[in-house]
Amino acid sequence: MKFDEIINRTGSHSVKWDMMENLYGVPASEGIAMWVADMDFRAPQCVQDAIGKMHEHGIYGYYGDDSSYRAAICWWMQNRHGWTLDPEAIFTTHGLVNGTAMCVDTFTQPGNGVVLMTPVYHAFAKVIRANNRRVVECDLINNDGRYEMDFDAWDAQLDGSEKMMILCSPHNPGGRVWTRAELDGVAAFAKRHDLILVSDEIHHDLVFPGAQHTPMALINGIEDRLIMMTATTKTFNIAGSHSGNVIIPNPELRQKFGARMMGLGLSPNSFGLHMAEAAYSPEGAAWVDDLVTYLDGNRQIFDAGINAIPGLKSMPLEATYLAWVDFAGTGMSREEFTDRVEKGAKIAVNHGPTFGSGGDNFLRFNLATPRTVVEQAVDRMQAAFADLQ
Amino acid sequence: MKFDEIINRTGSHSVKWDMMENLYGVPASEGIAMWVADMDFRAPQCVQDAIGKMHEHGIYGYYGDDSSYRAAICWWMQNRHGWTLDPEAIFTTHGLVNGTAMCVDTFTQPGNGVVLMTPVYHAFAKVIRANNRRVVECDLINNDGRYEMDFDAWDAQLDGSEKMMILCSPHNPGGRVWTRAELDGVAAFAKRHDLILVSDEIHHDLVFPGAQHTPMALINGIEDRLIMMTATTKTFNIAGSHSGNVIIPNPELRQKFGARMMGLGLSPNSFGLHMAEAAYSPEGAAWVDDLVTYLDGNRQIFDAGINAIPGLKSMPLEATYLAWVDFAGTGMSREEFTDRVEKGAKIAVNHGPTFGSGGDNFLRFNLATPRTVVEQAVDRMQAAFADLQ
Repeated sequence: MKFDEIINRTGSHSVKWDMMENLYGVPASEGIAMWVADMDFRAPQCVQDAIGKMHEHGIYGYYGDDSSYRAAICWWMQNRHGWTLDPEAIFTTHGLVNGTAMCVDTFTQPGNGVVLMTPVYHAFAKVIRANNRRVVECDLINNDGRYEMDFDAWDAQLDGSEKMMILCSPHNPGGRVWTRAELDGVAAFAKRHDLILVSDEIHHDLVFPGAQHTPMALINGIEDRLIMMTATTKTFNIAGSHSGNVIIPNPELRQKFGARMMGLGLSPNSFGLHMAEAAYSPEGAAWVDDLVTYLDGNRQIFDAGINAIPGLKSMPLEATYLAWVDFAGTGMSREEFTDRVEKGAKIAVNHGPTFGSGGDNFLRFNLATPRTVVEQAVDRMQAAFADLQ
Repeated sequence: MKFDEIINRTGSHSVKWDMMENLYGVPASEGIAMWVADMDFRAPQCVQDAIGKMHEHGIYGYYGDDSSYRAAICWWMQNRHGWTLDPEAIFTTHGLVNGTAMCVDTFTQPGNGVVLMTPVYHAFAKVIRANNRRVVECDLINNDGRYEMDFDAWDAQLDGSEKMMILCSPHNPGGRVWTRAELDGVAAFAKRHDLILVSDEIHHDLVFPGAQHTPMALINGIEDRLIMMTATTKTFNIAGSHSGNVIIPNPELRQKFGARMMGLGLSPNSFGLHMAEAAYSPEGAAWVDDLVTYLDGNRQIFDAGINAIPGLKSMPLEATYLAWVDFAGTGMSREEFTDRVEKGAKIAVNHGPTFGSGGDNFLRFNLATPRTVVEQAVDRMQAAFADLQ
């Protein structure tokens, strides 16, 4: 199986592997890198071939004529997500952290509140604060290991100073694929509080059997205040290309965003464009199907192994390869369970508190690695918490 | 000779070749693309090999540990430009249009004036205006085909609302390599008017024999208000990587710029970083030496051929591969000489007025193409203006 191969990433400028010793004190030779959200798999052959073709050409000049790139995006959204898209609605940003930041910069003012459903992807709060906007943490309910929305509480919490909401759909961490009813609720909430709704759907292709992702763009009545964000980077493991798409149906919002892109002199690098065009293809789609099957196997093995440890609980993922493990049942302090994972099991993970309110007792584990590595991680975890057995 | 090879760039998403028909009405099969400032040459072998190595690895994840990248930049500046650099002073932006825009955004306010020495690279004015700042055009003196500064006139022109000056060094268009005395004058001018000085030195490696480029960072007394901008993209023909360096000696300015980078969620793509590290090397340096020799030959052939046409005058280039041709002596309207070049000779060029005040009678020709193409362009120009002979 193509995802089983162990590929040595050390010395390749992989942040996940090459910065691990520096940040976690665990050398790559001994540790398992399960933090940064990229995969230890090669990109699909069609994407590798796109780079091979560029390499062969040898001239890496200014990119022009992006019509086939835009067409490939539209094809993918139509065929994989049932979403019909205007190619002119697409902006290419430098990944979706930049995309999020551009939305905050363009559509809010300093001091405005930006609503997050916490715990959530840590970079959102970082860019909101770096722009001197306020993070408004609306807590998700952890209903027996499943995150749910709490609109009544959130309605009471907002005070009218909020101008934007950033939805993470599917949700990271926790892996919820929001139902159509939940998304209807989000749309109504955004309208009720007059919020621009930014929907980060970067994990939309990594959805496990049994769940069905609905693009926010298909929810009725939200289009005029909606910013969609998608990317090839998570799906095809090409985060190094730093490319993402901000897709804006409303012409007025689109015009404002375009003016800000021009003001900041932002235009995309050619590598990301060539790779995206190759990825959004039938060959890319077949690879994603295989990938999801493989990741589904990984998460089943991981969850079974982790949930066998008394006091640990891995949230059942409907999407993403990012396991969210609750250590509350151990009764240990955050320092203790983190030390056991990082110094005992020598696994580098993301720390719960960086995801905001509700994350304190959690660690996030990246499962996009060969199965034997996942198995090894489970073994190490069981050893590190053996006294609880 | 390696630069003699004619490489077909059509169908490679080259803006210069693939957008020519759309913008100029000249199909690539008939026309000569001499507009967009990239080169029709392959990048040096060491840069191609960097892409080859990435291709072979097949994983294009998040980039980390940029110490060797920073060290390569410092090595290049030290060895090629005599400039000793703090690696911590370097920011990597998405090319230097983004770098310029970030400077304008970070260090000026809406309504502030930003000083340009015109005519000058068109993107400066574009990003200044797109940020609702004012372009203050300080005209260069055209002293018999050589641009010179005019500080007395500029002193009289400024009114105190100006907060920044963008220097293009070497100058594009016109190809001046500013002398140390001229740069001392710029430094004094910037201090006299309390301006932040942004020095775009993207062409600093493409300097012809007889001229000597001085980095603005080596001019005394300017360091605390100086932003240096350099890039691999022009030197090594890798503009598609959209990578540039904004280098800030002053810690306070550096802190502000870093905060804006974080606020906008900007971090570099891995392709530009891998290529830069490979390019800033002894092998890259040897390639640049050969390139400059080749470009010097191209400009001599072009200038001789163009200056043989009565009424046309090509500015003698001290640097850059961008010939700046004055058509004033023909007595023709701008429409007529432009039509003769584009519709007659079928050469796509940049139009003088886009470079601001003083550019009206000029067209800019990109000479970074195989010599036979330059010779063909000269033949076509002589034919298109044959009635003047």
